[in-house]
Amino acid sequence: MQAKDIGEFRLIQRFKREIRVDSSVITGSGDDCAVLKLDKQNYQLLTCDMLIEGVDFTLKDNPYLIGRKAIAVSLSDIAACSGQPRYCVISLGLPGNTAIKFIDKLFQGMLDISRKYKVNIVGGDLSRSKKIIIDVSMLGQVEKKRLTLRSKALQGDIIFVSGPLGGSILGKHLKFTPRLNEARFLSRNFKINAMIDISDGLAQDLGHILNQSNCGAVIYEDLIPLSKEADGLSAALNGGEDFELLFTLSRKEAGKLLKVKRPHFRPIGEIMAKDYGFKLIDKQKRALNVRPKGFQHF
Amino acid sequence: MQAKDIGEFRLIQRFKREIRVDSSVITGSGDDCAVLKLDKQNYQLLTCDMLIEGVDFTLKDNPYLIGRKAIAVSLSDIAACSGQPRYCVISLGLPGNTAIKFIDKLFQGMLDISRKYKVNIVGGDLSRSKKIIIDVSMLGQVEKKRLTLRSKALQGDIIFVSGPLGGSILGKHLKFTPRLNEARFLSRNFKINAMIDISDGLAQDLGHILNQSNCGAVIYEDLIPLSKEADGLSAALNGGEDFELLFTLSRKEAGKLLKVKRPHFRPIGEIMAKDYGFKLIDKQKRALNVRPKGFQHF
Repeated sequence: MQAKDIGEFRLIQRFKREIRVDSSVITGSGDDCAVLKLDKQNYQLLTCDMLIEGVDFTLKDNPYLIGRKAIAVSLSDIAACSGQPRYCVISLGLPGNTAIKFIDKLFQGMLDISRKYKVNIVGGDLSRSKKIIIDVSMLGQVEKKRLTLRSKALQGDIIFVSGPLGGSILGKHLKFTPRLNEARFLSRNFKINAMIDISDGLAQDLGHILNQSNCGAVIYEDLIPLSKEADGLSAALNGGEDFELLFTLSRKEAGKLLKVKRPHFRPIGEIMAKDYGFKLIDKQKRALNVRPKGFQHF
Repeated sequence: MQAKDIGEFRLIQRFKREIRVDSSVITGSGDDCAVLKLDKQNYQLLTCDMLIEGVDFTLKDNPYLIGRKAIAVSLSDIAACSGQPRYCVISLGLPGNTAIKFIDKLFQGMLDISRKYKVNIVGGDLSRSKKIIIDVSMLGQVEKKRLTLRSKALQGDIIFVSGPLGGSILGKHLKFTPRLNEARFLSRNFKINAMIDISDGLAQDLGHILNQSNCGAVIYEDLIPLSKEADGLSAALNGGEDFELLFTLSRKEAGKLLKVKRPHFRPIGEIMAKDYGFKLIDKQKRALNVRPKGFQHF
């Protein structure tokens, strides 16, 4: 049996069930970040994301944007937990014949976005490899009260997204804005129950919230905001890397949020009991079962 | 111009000079770990290390030992700073046709050594890739008083190693014991001025201490302990991954250390003024200039 016969999530599950952690670990593997005890008021957040040439980008992409993305995906994980990024380390694998011009632009993309979001680049590891590999680990922190996880959605919650979906394949995956400011705004002013960033498509990432919160959901085709570039609803449901926030909050809190002039926060459905399942109401008012089939590596 | 024309260290230098960090960063890129403010008594340590198939291991190696090594190299970095490991995240790239048996053994190697040294595995990222890639980022901590860096060697210090050198290429690089207990013993009982783990060969790693401490050094061929398997002095000087500790302490502290029954701590030379250079006294009492030529990726 081989990796591809088992699939990404079952492979991770296989490893996870053997892991034991001590009581300083609030949330280990399985959320956007690991959540670790820090002090009376704050938790520490830790996350890692690897980009590989040919999978996450190609040599035809702008190297500045590749470097930027390598940092931005981890920023997006910190945002999903409502945290603030602080430090990162970067492991870089490069072929010996990589042009210095290319490397300089890659570095500049990393430097600029790190500076913008006040992340200290504090170390790294450089190796020779056949393909370009960039792995970023990021450390952040979040006030205990403001931490948002995938596992805390409640029946009756309204489901929101932070912006239009389905633009990933047309370039958004390289140029997206990590929603740090939006997450901090939300967690400062509202009681957010569950949150995730959309990195595998709406269907799969809402699926993660439902699995981990032990809930069902209904979403409405009419309400799902599509990018101008999106190739229909399927691009939003299964399109991968939009890096918008997907979050849930009580009906009352949702009412407050709708009064705020932030039109890009859009309600798309509601959290239901688990036995309801996960349904999409299409434009003809038919209820269709949603099967998460976003991006899987295996 | 390409990566291989510039070399690993100049490539890193090129990036480092553009990096700005805030005052919470005690030591950024350039030591074994980044050192970050934590609380009154302690610093936090952060390090990352990437292993790549074909560079750091081959498919003929025992997958259990590959997994073990992926964690152990970061443990060795934490040891070099006299710290205690706490948490790690693992990014893993795997070809789709990797046998599940291989993956299970890889995982088991990671799990066992993590448990042994009380590291919590708290997250990861799994990708498909052409070659196997394992990147581990590790978070640890150290009492402020016990932190050891590369940059604090002083003229007159005696230079020690924690064990025999030169066995890397014959398998030690996959089976080494990260010197966490030894580093904790040393920093509890002695005033260690500078420390590094030997991952690029004695010549190059002592070279890092000398560069960063602005010093010279003399080492004695007669005193350098060789592994049974070592193929002469050159294997020790330039042989790469022994993962022993290399450290310096005052003559007085060294005298105390020599009285302790820990025969594997061996004095090999002395820190000199910078203008002395870096010399090896060979068995014929000739002074030879040492040119660090250990492993470089480019």
